[in-house]
Amino acid sequence: PSSNNRRTVTLIPGDGIGPEISRSVQQIFDAADVPINWEAVDVTPVKAPDGKFRIPIHAIESVTKNRIGLKGPLATPVGKGHQSLNLALRKQFNLFANVRPCYQTPYTNVDLVTIRENTEGEYSGIEHTIVPGVVQSIKLITRHASLRVCEYAFLYAKQHKREKVTVVHKANIMRLSDGLFLQCAREVAEKYPDVQFEEMYLDTVCLKMVQDPTQFDCLVMPNLYGDILSDLCAGLIGGLGLTPSGNIGENGAAIFEAVHGTAPDIAGQDKANPTALLLSAVMMLRHLQMFDKAERIERACFDTIKDGKTLTGDLGGKSKCSEYTGEICKRIKN
Amino acid sequence: PSSNNRRTVTLIPGDGIGPEISRSVQQIFDAADVPINWEAVDVTPVKAPDGKFRIPIHAIESVTKNRIGLKGPLATPVGKGHQSLNLALRKQFNLFANVRPCYQTPYTNVDLVTIRENTEGEYSGIEHTIVPGVVQSIKLITRHASLRVCEYAFLYAKQHKREKVTVVHKANIMRLSDGLFLQCAREVAEKYPDVQFEEMYLDTVCLKMVQDPTQFDCLVMPNLYGDILSDLCAGLIGGLGLTPSGNIGENGAAIFEAVHGTAPDIAGQDKANPTALLLSAVMMLRHLQMFDKAERIERACFDTIKDGKTLTGDLGGKSKCSEYTGEICKRIKN
Ligand SMILES: CC(C)[C@H](C(=O)O)[C@@H](O)C(=O)O
Ligand SMILES: CC(C)[C@H](C(=O)O)[C@@H](O)C(=O)O
Repeated sequence: PSSNNRRTVTLIPGDGIGPEISRSVQQIFDAADVPINWEAVDVTPVKAPDGKFRIPIHAIESVTKNRIGLKGPLATPVGKGHQSLNLALRKQFNLFANVRPCYQTPYTNVDLVTIRENTEGEYSGIEHTIVPGVVQSIKLITRHASLRVCEYAFLYAKQHKREKVTVVHKANIMRLSDGLFLQCAREVAEKYPDVQFEEMYLDTVCLKMVQDPTQFDCLVMPNLYGDILSDLCAGLIGGLGLTPSGNIGENGAAIFEAVHGTAPDIAGQDKANPTALLLSAVMMLRHLQMFDKAERIERACFDTIKDGKTLTGDLGGKSKCSEYTGEICKRIKN
Repeated sequence: PSSNNRRTVTLIPGDGIGPEISRSVQQIFDAADVPINWEAVDVTPVKAPDGKFRIPIHAIESVTKNRIGLKGPLATPVGKGHQSLNLALRKQFNLFANVRPCYQTPYTNVDLVTIRENTEGEYSGIEHTIVPGVVQSIKLITRHASLRVCEYAFLYAKQHKREKVTVVHKANIMRLSDGLFLQCAREVAEKYPDVQFEEMYLDTVCLKMVQDPTQFDCLVMPNLYGDILSDLCAGLIGGLGLTPSGNIGENGAAIFEAVHGTAPDIAGQDKANPTALLLSAVMMLRHLQMFDKAERIERACFDTIKDGKTLTGDLGGKSKCSEYTGEICKRIKN
C-alpha cells in the first residue's frame, strides 16, 4: 500500500458514542485529503444455527479482504456465554500484539508505549470448575506467541527510534510461564544489540511508573499485565479519551481501536471526545506508511487541545464534538 | 492478649538492611515502653535430608508458639527450585489476608487499604510444561479462600470505620475464577448493609487510582491483583520505604513485614529508612489491641517526617537511621 493509491479500510463505528466519533474521524480525514475509502460494517452479533451469537459474516469478510480496520467502542453483549466482541475480533484475526502509545499530549512529557501479547496468557479462555467452589483458569504461555510479540516489540522500538525495551513479568512467582516469556524476550534482545534491554517485575513497574513514567520507553509483556499497565499509563496522561490503540496481526493486518467505553449516557448528544479514535486512526496511517498525513492530523489535534478554546466536556471545555472536529479540520486546512 | 501482660513476638530481622531497621524498631518500642518481648530467629533456609532447602525448624516453632511475628526483608535464595521465603512463610502459617494500608503520611491525603487474598490465585504454584514451548500456570480460586478474605475485608472495614469496600476483578475475562471471587464478595457484602459495596475491573481501578486515589477506601481482591495494586498505591505515597504490611491468619495469627527489599548496597551503613518496618510494627500493635502505644509511636513517626529535619536519604534528608530513630524516641518520651 503506497500513499498514492487509495486504500480501503473497514470501519466498525461501534455502539453508543461510536457512530458520532467515527463521523468525526471521517470528516477530519476528508479535510486532510487522506486517500482512504471507508467500508462501514456492523458487528452486532447474529444468532447462528447452533444458537450461539457470532460476528456477522460480512464484517469478517470485510476485515479479511481489507486487512485494516478502525473500530469504535463496542457494547459487551448481555447474558451468559457471550465472549467480549473485542476479544473475539482479536482472536478471529490473530492480532497478536496490542500496541498502546502514551505520548506527548500537550498535558505531559510522558512518552512510552506498552506492547501487550494479545492472544493467550490469562485470556486463554480455558477455565474449569473442578468441584463446586474450586475453579481453575489456565494461564497459557507459548514460545511461539511470546517470541512473536517480543520480536514485534524490538522491531517497533527500532523503527520508532525508541532506546529501551523493558520486559515486564512475574517470573519470581510464575517461574515456568512468565519464565518462558522472559526467556523469549532475552533471546530476541540478543538480536538487537542497539536497543537497551531491561527486565522488571510487574509490581515494581507499577510503583516506578506512578513515580516517574518518563523512565520508561517501550514495554513488552504478557496479555493481562498489558491490560493493567496500559490503563495505568492512560490514567497518567489524562484518561482513555486520549489514548490510541492498535491490534497488530501477521502480514500487516491490523485493527486500530478506541479503548474507552460506549458512554451511553452521552451518546447521540454531540458531546463525545473523538480524540482516542482519531489518534488510533493516526496510528493506522503510520502503519500504512502515510507518515505525512499522520503528522498533519496529529499536529492539528494536539494544537487544538493545547489552544484549549474548543475542548469537549471531558477535557474541561464546553464545545461540542462537532465544534472540536471543525477546529481540527480548520487547522489542517490552514 | 491484653495490653497489661507482656506479649512475646517472633522477630525475623531478615537480610541486608533488615537487622539495622529491626534494631531501630526495638529501640522505639523500648522508648514507648511497649510490653513486648522479642524472640529473634534466623530464617536462612537449611538443607533438609531430601536435598531441598527449608525454613529452619526453630523459626517455625517460634512463630507457631507466639502466633505473632515481625519480619524484615528477606533475600530471595539464588538457584532453581527455591520458592520465595516470603511466600513460604505465608503458606506455612496459612496467612490468608495481606493487608496494606496506604494512609495519611504527612505527604498525601491518600487513605486507603488493599486487602489481598494471600494463598492462591496465580500464586498457587501449580505449573506445567505441556510440551516444550507450551506452558500452563494454574490460577486457582476457591470459594473457601475467597469468602474468607472477603469476610476479613468487610470486618476490617467495619472495625476501622471505613465506608466502602471495592472488589477488584477481571470477571469479564476470567468468568469462572474471578466470577467466583466476585460472587463471594457479593454474598459477604449482603451481610454488611452499613458498608458500601462497589465492583470494579482491575484495569479501571488502576486508571482511577492514578487519577484520584482519594476515591478509594478499602479494596479486596485476588492475590496477583493485590501484589500489583499495593505497589502502585505505595508509589503514590512515596514508595515502599513508607508502607506497612500485615499477613493475617486464622485465630489472630499474623506476620507483619516491610515489603521493600534488602537494599544490599546500603546495608550496614546506618543509612536505611526503618519507617516501613516501624509502621508494620504499629499495625501489629493495633492487631494486638495495644491502641494507645500504636497511636503514640505512629504520631512520633509522622511528626518526625513532617518536621523534616531528621530524615534519611531516601526521603531527601541527610540523617542516619540512628538519628532518625533517636528523634522518634525523643518525641515519644516528651
Ligand atoms: C473490554 C476488555 C475485554 C478489554 C480487555 O480486558 O482486554 C479492555 O480492557 C482492553 O484493554 O482492551
Ligand atoms: C517478593 C515477592 C514474592 C512478593 C510477592 O510477589 O507477593 C512481593 O512482591 C510482595 O508484594 O510481597
